[in-house]
Amino acid sequence: MTTFAPDAPPIGGFAAVVPAGGVGSRLWPLSRPERPKFLLDLLGEGSTLLQATIERLSPLADHVMVVTGAPHSDAVAAQVPSLGAADIVAEPSPRDSMAAIALAAALLEARHGPVVMGSFAADHVIRKPDAFHAAVRAAAACAAEGKIVTIGISPTGPSEAFGYIEAGDELGGGAHHVVAFTEKPDADTAARFIATGRYYWNAGMFVTRTDVLLGHVQRLQPGIESGVREIAAAWDGPERESVLDRVWPGLTRIAIDHAIAEPVAAQGGVAVVPADLDWHDVGDFASLASLLTPRADGITVVDRSAPTAQIDAPGALVMGGDRPVVVVGVEDAVVVDSGDALLVTTRHAAQDVKNAAQALNTART
Amino acid sequence: MTTFAPDAPPIGGFAAVVPAGGVGSRLWPLSRPERPKFLLDLLGEGSTLLQATIERLSPLADHVMVVTGAPHSDAVAAQVPSLGAADIVAEPSPRDSMAAIALAAALLEARHGPVVMGSFAADHVIRKPDAFHAAVRAAAACAAEGKIVTIGISPTGPSEAFGYIEAGDELGGGAHHVVAFTEKPDADTAARFIATGRYYWNAGMFVTRTDVLLGHVQRLQPGIESGVREIAAAWDGPERESVLDRVWPGLTRIAIDHAIAEPVAAQGGVAVVPADLDWHDVGDFASLASLLTPRADGITVVDRSAPTAQIDAPGALVMGGDRPVVVVGVEDAVVVDSGDALLVTTRHAAQDVKNAAQALNTART
Repeated sequence: MTTFAPDAPPIGGFAAVVPAGGVGSRLWPLSRPERPKFLLDLLGEGSTLLQATIERLSPLADHVMVVTGAPHSDAVAAQVPSLGAADIVAEPSPRDSMAAIALAAALLEARHGPVVMGSFAADHVIRKPDAFHAAVRAAAACAAEGKIVTIGISPTGPSEAFGYIEAGDELGGGAHHVVAFTEKPDADTAARFIATGRYYWNAGMFVTRTDVLLGHVQRLQPGIESGVREIAAAWDGPERESVLDRVWPGLTRIAIDHAIAEPVAAQGGVAVVPADLDWHDVGDFASLASLLTPRADGITVVDRSAPTAQIDAPGALVMGGDRPVVVVGVEDAVVVDSGDALLVTTRHAAQDVKNAAQALNTART
Repeated sequence: MTTFAPDAPPIGGFAAVVPAGGVGSRLWPLSRPERPKFLLDLLGEGSTLLQATIERLSPLADHVMVVTGAPHSDAVAAQVPSLGAADIVAEPSPRDSMAAIALAAALLEARHGPVVMGSFAADHVIRKPDAFHAAVRAAAACAAEGKIVTIGISPTGPSEAFGYIEAGDELGGGAHHVVAFTEKPDADTAARFIATGRYYWNAGMFVTRTDVLLGHVQRLQPGIESGVREIAAAWDGPERESVLDRVWPGLTRIAIDHAIAEPVAAQGGVAVVPADLDWHDVGDFASLASLLTPRADGITVVDRSAPTAQIDAPGALVMGGDRPVVVVGVEDAVVVDSGDALLVTTRHAAQDVKNAAQALNTART
């Protein structure tokens, strides 16, 4: 891997694209359709996940572009004042990640000609930013040569929660050929993957030249390529809305993994830069709790303006609220007061929170 | 046992005394020093425990008297408008049950001469009021003959939560001699008690002639007897406050059980009227939950103005609050929102709630 200098200049012409989507339904009631996970300061550190993502990318990039749903573009602009109006791309409706990233690529190319771009989710936590910067530089160098490059997270254990990237021969510069991408494995398969030392977690980070990406899209999903080219050509003129309205709803809904990464990997066109980033998906309250620092009495308290106490409730996480809370005898309890709703669960049951909003809608009737 | 006629007249001259004390600390945050358990509508049935107690006693009694702490006398008057000022006795400070009941006896006797009085806690639930009325009538008849009479609750199982009354020979009229009172037993002892068929739960209900009670007090706790006689003599005149201030703080703090019931039982002077009252102490959220009717989905919801839902949380109890609540994966969860504080526990841990307020005070520092 390349050596990272903290004061290194941006990667020449590099464009950071941040798809900001996904509600984060397992983080209800903090996350909601109208205030998705990426707009939240989940760690209580003073910046939202989106803000932290932009801050992490800005030193590397000549251009930063956020692609988000139209309902969230105002919130994105408010949270990241450094973005100009042209840097926030509002999707009229969700068309999955391939259309979003291809549109960003087409817009960047229309404005700047072919550039190296990297796509990074708006709602991940990375605790080793220097290692991240080094990995992106290595990936960008490899991408400049024509590869689609993913950054593979060095696994800390045989997790069943992530897809895996199988690395093959070394390409130089810290990159390896990608043999294949795999879906989330079962426990035995995950353990076998880890034992080989050749598998990395897939965090959905892709670095590529815009022309290389759009070339693959043209070949594999031609409707998406012609559609985003047409939209991009009209974007900065008076026809943007009418072209979007006509073309966008017809684009195929497909993830970039299935549309491009997997088939191109099978043809030898994808590389991986492995990196130890202290990376976290923060998908639910259990993973969130593991990132936070407990108090001396063993419970974790976030974003509260009133006292919090526990009796026989080791590992409890209490978030939000302006009233005293006492947790008695519920190990690993999770209590989340969003002001307009209350969740009571445990770390163990944290995955099932994804159905909470629906359960409430049923109860309402 | 005597047969009860629902339209039967009051017991001639009978006085019902209701000591209204005790915070109910295991019901925090609903119960607080400033709004103790007896002032709460715990069952969500539209009347507080005190109101239900008075309503249950009124058909039997010519006189009803509530003895409570001075801070609660206004709340008692507001909740029970049928009580006159003379019917609410405000204790300047807690001196335990012997002083409270002896003062009531002395006041009743000063006003009406010797009468049969019964003392009944303000915060118990009795689901068979007809059986209760019949038991009080039987107890009053026996008390008129000079006994101290307790009403013994037919046990529904070998509980360790209550003291027990051992019944001996029958006295007639549904009453038996009391052999002895026992403290809360361990599990084995409780099981042995139940197996004999001669043991009843002690719910602290005592029925006695005022002169008989005060005679025992004079003999066994002479300081209390002379003190309450002196206070009673001054009660309806200008010296009440000064006599109370001088005498009350010096009265021995002792429960009526230890002061009178146990020693008099040992001398053969106490009787018990066994009764099946569907009686409940409602000491904690587990016992409260057992009295409430769950919804179709298995959770119990009380006094809430917003939707409540559960996922894998059978037996949950959710009380209070005006915001949506979802409980996920916490069996027998207890979630209580008092507006100014939040408790999260389980039925299993419900006893430990008694330390919640203290834990919060520690957390506050």
